[in-house]
Amino acid sequence: MKKIAVLIEDNFNEFELIYPYYRLKEEGFESILVGPQAKVYHSKVGLEMKADFSIDEINFDEFDGVVIPGGYAPDLLRRNEKILSFVRKMFESNKLVGAICHAGWVLISAKIVNGVTMTCFYSIKDDVKNAGAKYVDQSVVVDNNLITSRGPNDLPDFMKEIIKFLKK
Amino acid sequence: MKKIAVLIEDNFNEFELIYPYYRLKEEGFESILVGPQAKVYHSKVGLEMKADFSIDEINFDEFDGVVIPGGYAPDLLRRNEKILSFVRKMFESNKLVGAICHAGWVLISAKIVNGVTMTCFYSIKDDVKNAGAKYVDQSVVVDNNLITSRGPNDLPDFMKEIIKFLKK
Amino acid sequence: MKKIAVLIEDNFNEFELIYPYYRLKEEGFESILVGPQAKVYHSKVGLEMKADFSIDEINFDEFDGVVIPGGYAPDLLRRNEKILSFVRKMFESNKLVGAICHAGWVLISAKIVNGVTMTCFYSIKDDVKNAGAKYVDQSVVVDNNLITSRGPNDLPDFMKEIIKFLKK
Amino acid sequence: MKKIAVLIEDNFNEFELIYPYYRLKEEGFESILVGPQAKVYHSKVGLEMKADFSIDEINFDEFDGVVIPGGYAPDLLRRNEKILSFVRKMFESNKLVGAICHAGWVLISAKIVNGVTMTCFYSIKDDVKNAGAKYVDQSVVVDNNLITSRGPNDLPDFMKEIIKFLKK
Amino acid sequence: MKKIAVLIEDNFNEFELIYPYYRLKEEGFESILVGPQAKVYHSKVGLEMKADFSIDEINFDEFDGVVIPGGYAPDLLRRNEKILSFVRKMFESNKLVGAICHAGWVLISAKIVNGVTMTCFYSIKDDVKNAGAKYVDQSVVVDNNLITSRGPNDLPDFMKEIIKFLKK
Amino acid sequence: MKKIAVLIEDNFNEFELIYPYYRLKEEGFESILVGPQAKVYHSKVGLEMKADFSIDEINFDEFDGVVIPGGYAPDLLRRNEKILSFVRKMFESNKLVGAICHAGWVLISAKIVNGVTMTCFYSIKDDVKNAGAKYVDQSVVVDNNLITSRGPNDLPDFMKEIIKFLKK
Repeated sequence: MKKIAVLIEDNFNEFELIYPYYRLKEEGFESILVGPQAKVYHSKVGLEMKADFSIDEINFDEFDGVVIPGGYAPDLLRRNEKILSFVRKMFESNKLVGAICHAGWVLISAKIVNGVTMTCFYSIKDDVKNAGAKYVDQSVVVDNNLITSRGPNDLPDFMKEIIKFLKK
Repeated sequence: MKKIAVLIEDNFNEFELIYPYYRLKEEGFESILVGPQAKVYHSKVGLEMKADFSIDEINFDEFDGVVIPGGYAPDLLRRNEKILSFVRKMFESNKLVGAICHAGWVLISAKIVNGVTMTCFYSIKDDVKNAGAKYVDQSVVVDNNLITSRGPNDLPDFMKEIIKFLKK
Repeated sequence: MKKIAVLIEDNFNEFELIYPYYRLKEEGFESILVGPQAKVYHSKVGLEMKADFSIDEINFDEFDGVVIPGGYAPDLLRRNEKILSFVRKMFESNKLVGAICHAGWVLISAKIVNGVTMTCFYSIKDDVKNAGAKYVDQSVVVDNNLITSRGPNDLPDFMKEIIKFLKK
Repeated sequence: MKKIAVLIEDNFNEFELIYPYYRLKEEGFESILVGPQAKVYHSKVGLEMKADFSIDEINFDEFDGVVIPGGYAPDLLRRNEKILSFVRKMFESNKLVGAICHAGWVLISAKIVNGVTMTCFYSIKDDVKNAGAKYVDQSVVVDNNLITSRGPNDLPDFMKEIIKFLKK
Repeated sequence: MKKIAVLIEDNFNEFELIYPYYRLKEEGFESILVGPQAKVYHSKVGLEMKADFSIDEINFDEFDGVVIPGGYAPDLLRRNEKILSFVRKMFESNKLVGAICHAGWVLISAKIVNGVTMTCFYSIKDDVKNAGAKYVDQSVVVDNNLITSRGPNDLPDFMKEIIKFLKK
Repeated sequence: MKKIAVLIEDNFNEFELIYPYYRLKEEGFESILVGPQAKVYHSKVGLEMKADFSIDEINFDEFDGVVIPGGYAPDLLRRNEKILSFVRKMFESNKLVGAICHAGWVLISAKIVNGVTMTCFYSIKDDVKNAGAKYVDQSVVVDNNLITSRGPNDLPDFMKEIIKFLKK
């Protein structure tokens, strides 16, 4: 059974975390919430969800991909070197890296954006372009193992591509 | 394209509304938020979602099913005769009726529980039994067109059965 | 001095807990807040009140009655077997059982509703009827030692009957 | 039937407003919530209650007394000349003036404190003494038609004296 | 480098604490948050700030002044004898005592108001007058080492005079 | 009298908006809150402040500078073309542009960062560097008319340089 890390931090976007988390489970994957610490995090409006594991407790080799929800959690996640290194190794190992909305910030700080084609929430498109990405305004963009979307409305398209990738 | 009403009221459970709402869309169905009024509702922790239509604005014949999330929204939904009548007609027309967690209260007040086999959140199992249902403690129970689950952890199983039913 | 347990859990209705709690004291009774644990609970809007004792710490024989406020606290209280057993023994010992609004759910799960005449908040009247009660729509209903009311507006009538019962 | 105004403003203490409001009703009095405006006010933790009438809409002659709850509402009430004038006329007409906790601030600004014997929440006792009152530290103090208490724990004693006065 | 204590308690006014705290630092003074305890306090809307020291930990002789912000924090600060004694000694030692808005309550309970000329938020002007002060309605009033203002709009004038005093 | 626009949007950092706003006033400048609309905005914890003017209502020529507070307000401000154009013209006209913490995002989208020396909150330093700035980790950086700081602790240094610039 494939194992996917869904990254969590405070101020996560509720839709973008809840939907992928359960969707992966429905498809038969292990969906694991991973944060800087193995503690309860609060969404933008205060919804509580507990990280199953801290980034320190997990073993990169056991995971087949990472999904990064948006909200302002990415501004916190990008401050953590271990999180960034985990995302970078995923990308470089050709494992799934899914990022939606403001999660583009994590990709930027993980230094994996240069030369890729991707999308993101429109308010951060300047950051994404400046980092060397080719920015495209569409619901989901698949560039090899990097799958990106713009926001909550794109969740169905985002997860369709993520599942297609994982089932290859 | 099949059209499903997802019922919304204040105090809705975030997981149980968000997951089915997007899951139906991903599968290619029209997923429509329907509440007593076409206004913004607030979840238990204050997440805002807007009903696409009020129960007064929709036409029963256009819909192929209804999904009722839990939380304490069902205690409010069951006070609305039009909501109850909509659910009852769905059930009697052999269209999909999906109910999770505390949504069993809506089924009880819609008078469709007597004789069915179903599950629900354990705190309301006495209400469900007293209403004449055969209560079963399992992640999802399918009794013809009535599909029920116990709570957020059962969402993957719940939606798998709902999609299987809708694709028949 | 007679001793009355007022049950408390999170999401209690502020009016229905505060008024009986102080009213019993004014009349010279001991009014004791009892919850599943001896901790601080939060009302629907976040008002804090601390349970004087947990249900485990109290001795049934010392109490002359129980009052159960509404809100959504009853959905939590009915999950606790010791709370249900305490209420059932009160009822069977012909001691006071006062229940207002959604507190009817606790009576249902305590299995004391069959055959009684009672009232409750209108959204749960189906649950109460299905449990075998004769439901009456009036401000307060006295059926031997069971005294029930519909909601906050009925508090004056509710407490008048409760005090009359306790002073007999 | 005697008619009592219970004053309301934002930041009212929940206990000190709810208990007197219903207690007067139980005793058969008309209990009317009066605020600077006929609108919804919010308690310290956000509980909503609506003033039945604004101070502009009511007729002094129809009322037999006023009860002033505490919290920080009194700091707002004392800014309103019509409220202060209403309280002063009550006092001078030998009608009931009940004040609990921080409500002493309203009495001070209504200029009725000089020479009276009274109590209040201990944090404002300097203000009360400076205004010319004889401050006493006891649960309830009756000085002719002025009845004062210290805080929520004194509510039973407070209302006992208020009712005794109104029934004379 | 001169050292100023800025007093903190729950329900502090955000503007009246934040502005003086940083302003003193900008001018090159040590600005120290002092509360009854060395813990996190919450403003009226929930902003968190941590007291650098508790009143028990600090040495009066090391400080050159005290600034007391408003909000409802002063109603809590005036309950603490050590806080009051600290303010009184500041005043009697001709060191700076700055008080804005509702902070006048602290001055009253510190018994330093009799005979001074000062201003305050208008809702507490009766308390200030009753305590023996000459109340003046202007943005800032300097009476020797006592500097007072009415509210947030007066912050620029308030701090101008405080800095002038400290630089003498 | 010089006139400075302080930009406001929801999720503004309380310290970084309140301190510059009043500090400019104390120094004798006109400090004007400008947002996308002339309405009330809410800080991260819910503090309310009202924009004096919308960006549509103001005249660029009347202003001598702009100060941009941090928090997550900059992620909203950078979505508004008129705000970006206002900041760009300030920069190009050699008028003051002050930006603290996450406000660097606004500078990036205003396309004024390439080639400048600046600082910012460390989580966005990759975005700033990618946009062509020379990033420096110090409390305040002055590059001609662009003055930048890292966060709340740098407010005293930030405002010292801003005032020095405005007084030249």
